[in-house]
Amino acid sequence: MAYLEGKALVAQGGGPTAVINQSVVGVALEARRFAQVTRVYGALHGVNGIINENLVDLTEATAANLEVVAATPSSGLLSTRDKPDEAYCKKIFEVCKAHGIRFFFYCGGNDSADTCRIVNQQASESNYDLRVIHVPKTIDNDLKVTDHCPGYGSAAKFVAQAFAGANLDNRAIPGVYIGVVMGRHAGFLTAAAALCRKYSDDGPHLIYLPERAITKDKFLDDVTAAFEKHGRCVVAVSEGIVDEQGEAIASQFTGGEKDSHGNVQLSGTGALGDLLAAWIKERKLTKRVRADTLGYLQRSFLGCVSEVDQVEARAVGEKAAHYAIRHDLDGSVAIKRVGDYAVSYFLTPLESVARHATEMPDAFINDAGNGVTEDFIKYARPLVGATPDWQRLDAPLVEKIMNKE
Amino acid sequence: MAYLEGKALVAQGGGPTAVINQSVVGVALEARRFAQVTRVYGALHGVNGIINENLVDLTEATAANLEVVAATPSSGLLSTRDKPDEAYCKKIFEVCKAHGIRFFFYCGGNDSADTCRIVNQQASESNYDLRVIHVPKTIDNDLKVTDHCPGYGSAAKFVAQAFAGANLDNRAIPGVYIGVVMGRHAGFLTAAAALCRKYSDDGPHLIYLPERAITKDKFLDDVTAAFEKHGRCVVAVSEGIVDEQGEAIASQFTGGEKDSHGNVQLSGTGALGDLLAAWIKERKLTKRVRADTLGYLQRSFLGCVSEVDQVEARAVGEKAAHYAIRHDLDGSVAIKRVGDYAVSYFLTPLESVARHATEMPDAFINDAGNGVTEDFIKYARPLVGATPDWQRLDAPLVEKIMNKE
Repeated sequence: MAYLEGKALVAQGGGPTAVINQSVVGVALEARRFAQVTRVYGALHGVNGIINENLVDLTEATAANLEVVAATPSSGLLSTRDKPDEAYCKKIFEVCKAHGIRFFFYCGGNDSADTCRIVNQQASESNYDLRVIHVPKTIDNDLKVTDHCPGYGSAAKFVAQAFAGANLDNRAIPGVYIGVVMGRHAGFLTAAAALCRKYSDDGPHLIYLPERAITKDKFLDDVTAAFEKHGRCVVAVSEGIVDEQGEAIASQFTGGEKDSHGNVQLSGTGALGDLLAAWIKERKLTKRVRADTLGYLQRSFLGCVSEVDQVEARAVGEKAAHYAIRHDLDGSVAIKRVGDYAVSYFLTPLESVARHATEMPDAFINDAGNGVTEDFIKYARPLVGATPDWQRLDAPLVEKIMNKE
Repeated sequence: MAYLEGKALVAQGGGPTAVINQSVVGVALEARRFAQVTRVYGALHGVNGIINENLVDLTEATAANLEVVAATPSSGLLSTRDKPDEAYCKKIFEVCKAHGIRFFFYCGGNDSADTCRIVNQQASESNYDLRVIHVPKTIDNDLKVTDHCPGYGSAAKFVAQAFAGANLDNRAIPGVYIGVVMGRHAGFLTAAAALCRKYSDDGPHLIYLPERAITKDKFLDDVTAAFEKHGRCVVAVSEGIVDEQGEAIASQFTGGEKDSHGNVQLSGTGALGDLLAAWIKERKLTKRVRADTLGYLQRSFLGCVSEVDQVEARAVGEKAAHYAIRHDLDGSVAIKRVGDYAVSYFLTPLESVARHATEMPDAFINDAGNGVTEDFIKYARPLVGATPDWQRLDAPLVEKIMNKE
């Protein structure tokens, strides 16, 4: 078998994650081991760096530097919000051709998979041998085919630990606490707020996902019931929650600012949390109503990473190199759950992942549409891995002397 | 010397921290070792639990449970926002007397120290032997006398790691990022945003503290200059920043809701961040302006704790037990910096800590009033201790072929 020989190129697209650099470093270190790979380039700012030829030579990076970069959150190669159309993809292909790139790896979500699909098609139509591999990455966990996405486990860990702390805080000084979590259409990340619950009355007591429409009345009835039961209430809300018309409740505050993918801006503002807090204050349930928006911390915080996620993000990068370089294949690397808990990797066609994303399965959402099921907990806990232990004080009450009942 | 014999009582007041339970467990475990301490009680919900006799018997708690509670964020004994007046303190004293409490430990900030002072005075006026020790705790680091407060180091670590991540995120996808940090009057916690900066152009590029008034024009000029220099800008802002009239800029949004200490609510809303973002959008510097409010995560997040802070929080609890039980003294435990980095502990009179808080020294704030000095970094880094390492990719640029310049 005659091996394809030439350079490799790796790039990152879309929002950063805690482990996306693991994937890039997995590609780079593995590709460097193949004799037929003459150089491994990285594109700065994703596809934008390709068309402008802002490339760096990762063959010259030390292993020590690459290992620390792998453990660094956010995109070490920097990212872009550009969404390439056919003409843009043509430019990508032309630059690849000019530089003798034979292996192209693009790390991102379903939009990035679509870019891979188009570039791959154009190369094929031009009879230029170019292997294109999409390396999966999202904190939203909304890619099709794969069991889960690298990047999700670490963001889920952050959300789980944030709500574990918020629950303890809310128990110490009771009131209503709302935490707004990222996730435009898929509720996986918001659902992760439940993962560190331990005692039966721990919060979050309510979890609202983009998969289920909410009404103001239902929301307030839920919060009231939880507050009356527990004397406090912790609520996890997805930034993408919609009303009964399917309209994102947050979109009314953001002036309709849209990114190049046509997505309305939902993150980077506290408006949704403040609206929900104002609703609760209207009800006069309690004066102590607080709303936090977890914001960019959940995808970029330095020092909160799932070890499982780290290992898998590295692995999808390594496997990407294997599929393209050793096996001469195109596609998207996907994860299959083969044990409790173990995974293996496989390649799925680019078309099967490109463009359309997925949502939470019904089996993960409770019937009332305000919480998650045990099935979800079982699915998600192995992805997050170990979280810090915590306990309540276990000490008997002292008999009263002055205030006998 | 005849030792005072009787029960010990420990309670927590005010906002939780990541290490306040270390102090309570330090008091409890150490007090349990003294033969003249017949029982160690804990009050649920601080002073409120004392006057209502909601007490638990910590003598019955296992060491294993206490150790996990010590590592748990928030107040294991739960907390209160009650601010006792003279009559309230009288009730505290009466309950102590009824239960044969001879040693009272109250863990909190300057308001808690004031409660200690009043209760101590009332006991003394009634000729009832009651040792009262204030155990220092704040995330704001605003207590007098002590070099720094237990609780600050861990919150500072969270803020430092949050901004380290935000800086990396902002570098990957440039724009203006604003992070709003807790701290009503003292800027120590906001200043901690600078602690993980590594490369010379790392953010936060601007840091606004409550100690220096800001104007809209000055703020926008600063942001514009930083953006023009770096092509991006990360800003750390204290929730307590004031205008030239000394009015908190955030207070206009919160409807003037006040707690029992007369403090206007500043936390638990994203309004300040959204206002500053709107200012920047008016300037049309960039379309990509995002504002996060770090909120309750910075004091409660499960799994972000400074090891130095943990050790010191335990130590002030232990020393509190020593001062009261072995040495028959009243006061507030304080920390002295005796090496680079090492500390020792001493007792300071309750009056020296009660009521009035401190602010950042001038030497920690730059002349422009929009950043911190090397003196601050030197002061704060040992309190935060080790943070995760991170690096930028170090790889040479590839020569352009198609876009030759």
